[in-house]
Amino acid sequence: MPTINRQWLLAARPTTRLTREHFTFAETPLPDLADGRALVAVRYLSLDPTNRGWANATATYLPPIPLGEVMRGIALGVVEQSRLATLPVGTLVQGMFGWQSHVVTDGRHLTRIDPVPGLPLDACFGLFGHIGATAYFGLIDITHPKPGETLVVSAAAGAVGSLVGQIGKILGCRVIGIAGTDDKCAWITRDLGFDEAINYRTEKVAHRLRDLCPDGVDIYFDNVGGEILDAVLGQIALRARISLCGLISHYNDAVPPPGPRYLGNLLIKRARIEGFIVLDYASRFPEAMQALGKWYMEGRLKYRVDVVEGLEHAPDALNRLFDGANTGKLLVKVS
Amino acid sequence: MPTINRQWLLAARPTTRLTREHFTFAETPLPDLADGRALVAVRYLSLDPTNRGWANATATYLPPIPLGEVMRGIALGVVEQSRLATLPVGTLVQGMFGWQSHVVTDGRHLTRIDPVPGLPLDACFGLFGHIGATAYFGLIDITHPKPGETLVVSAAAGAVGSLVGQIGKILGCRVIGIAGTDDKCAWITRDLGFDEAINYRTEKVAHRLRDLCPDGVDIYFDNVGGEILDAVLGQIALRARISLCGLISHYNDAVPPPGPRYLGNLLIKRARIEGFIVLDYASRFPEAMQALGKWYMEGRLKYRVDVVEGLEHAPDALNRLFDGANTGKLLVKVS
Repeated sequence: MPTINRQWLLAARPTTRLTREHFTFAETPLPDLADGRALVAVRYLSLDPTNRGWANATATYLPPIPLGEVMRGIALGVVEQSRLATLPVGTLVQGMFGWQSHVVTDGRHLTRIDPVPGLPLDACFGLFGHIGATAYFGLIDITHPKPGETLVVSAAAGAVGSLVGQIGKILGCRVIGIAGTDDKCAWITRDLGFDEAINYRTEKVAHRLRDLCPDGVDIYFDNVGGEILDAVLGQIALRARISLCGLISHYNDAVPPPGPRYLGNLLIKRARIEGFIVLDYASRFPEAMQALGKWYMEGRLKYRVDVVEGLEHAPDALNRLFDGANTGKLLVKVS
Repeated sequence: MPTINRQWLLAARPTTRLTREHFTFAETPLPDLADGRALVAVRYLSLDPTNRGWANATATYLPPIPLGEVMRGIALGVVEQSRLATLPVGTLVQGMFGWQSHVVTDGRHLTRIDPVPGLPLDACFGLFGHIGATAYFGLIDITHPKPGETLVVSAAAGAVGSLVGQIGKILGCRVIGIAGTDDKCAWITRDLGFDEAINYRTEKVAHRLRDLCPDGVDIYFDNVGGEILDAVLGQIALRARISLCGLISHYNDAVPPPGPRYLGNLLIKRARIEGFIVLDYASRFPEAMQALGKWYMEGRLKYRVDVVEGLEHAPDALNRLFDGANTGKLLVKVS
């Protein structure tokens, strides 16, 4: 049985990037397990762009992480030791376990995971869980896609974006993905079935959108904000819907940058931008999981994971998201 | 019978303000009235912020006005001469008659106005027509106000804003108006029943909103865009709705200015911004007119008109909107 918990404690507030210097790596003795408690060994830690905002001194949609506490993070683990009847050893569980190798739980605030035969464990983050729900509800509930509509997705080779585009295709949309390398563009068009891809680092997004969407963009699923949001706003169709899922281009700025110049197009085009937070859909997760599972089994949905080995690399790994270095869902393999 | 039509013809495209230099004032002989036509003498010309965008070379929600043509404008007139059975002399009509003293009509593309006893003619623009419909649908359809919610309105002493705030009060909201002079602030709070007013020229809007709305802004009806939109975005409540009616702070800019920095709050607060154009509600205008008329008769709704005498002053009068010089609905009395 383990006796040591390895933990990344938040030690300082970042003003730009969140890096190794803002953390302390601690090795803390694990207490003897009290009655009614179980010890979970973390297998995978999910790294998400939203983690950056959680480290700020001001609240986002969650309160700030107090300095000195374990860095917050969604993780998947297995019960290794138990004095809690409802969580026998071997149970797979998911929850806000944080950046640490172990967590002691009283069984509340976690989700039991039933392994699906034939599906690897990383599907819990690559396809299901908060990522799948974000793509599913953020696209369907916020934008109500109709067959034949043109859907544009940014961060299209990321965890959420890659699912959004594929769901868009399943729902009959024409899908254009925006990503940052030719390899990513090739992956989303050749492997995932996107109709078109734009490399925002080598191409002018506004010009390409004008060429590719002469009748305008009906739906934009935005993960990035910034100049790309502005380029899409310049090309929206009548009654366009923009789902604001993330603004990764802003997260490392001490002061938010100025917003889009083409906001006035919302008016001219009777369009809307709506933000959402996937936590609000928790009670409806089963609906998303059922649909995603069915599509996956039918071979209509693919996912990719980008796994960094070792909890000790978590801070560096997080910045792969901001460098655009990852393709698919970024995970840390903890044990 | 008149023989001369006085007209403001658009002669050049504005890059900043639309002024007298962009027009030619023409005195054109009126043709003999053909069979099936009626001659309307314009009484009131409505001046609206959106007129500025209509003069651009690029389409807004309407095609550009061709150079050399009469400047587009909504107006109210009376049939002065008729060879059209459906429009007898004396009929009051409203339509896109333009900046001219007379218009010849075949009876299409206009609305007959039935004078309401006890209500002056200027109520057609001050309370009813496109102004009333803009306030009514832009508030109710776009934001779905609930009793007890906090509603903020910009350009609150303007034609639309002053009605929006009063409708908000009727629907049970707490209403805060933002305007540019102490007189306007006094008018909306003392005469119109707004709960609070902020003078954006002498007060810090963001600070005042923080003090006045500790629980956040539930609804923002925006007529102005720019810094005020940003200040409100910084203070929105969970699930806030922003109705984008106008962006008067941008209309004289050759290039749209950068947008709001606090767009990310849409995400954190699960909020939305939605633009609308009142023309889309044409088929539902009677619903708005009925509600507004009833509230007016009950003494729950007031309006004010700001009348400039003489068609020759139309270009200068238009810029009263951009100077914030008008209170209530800006009209030109043509005859």
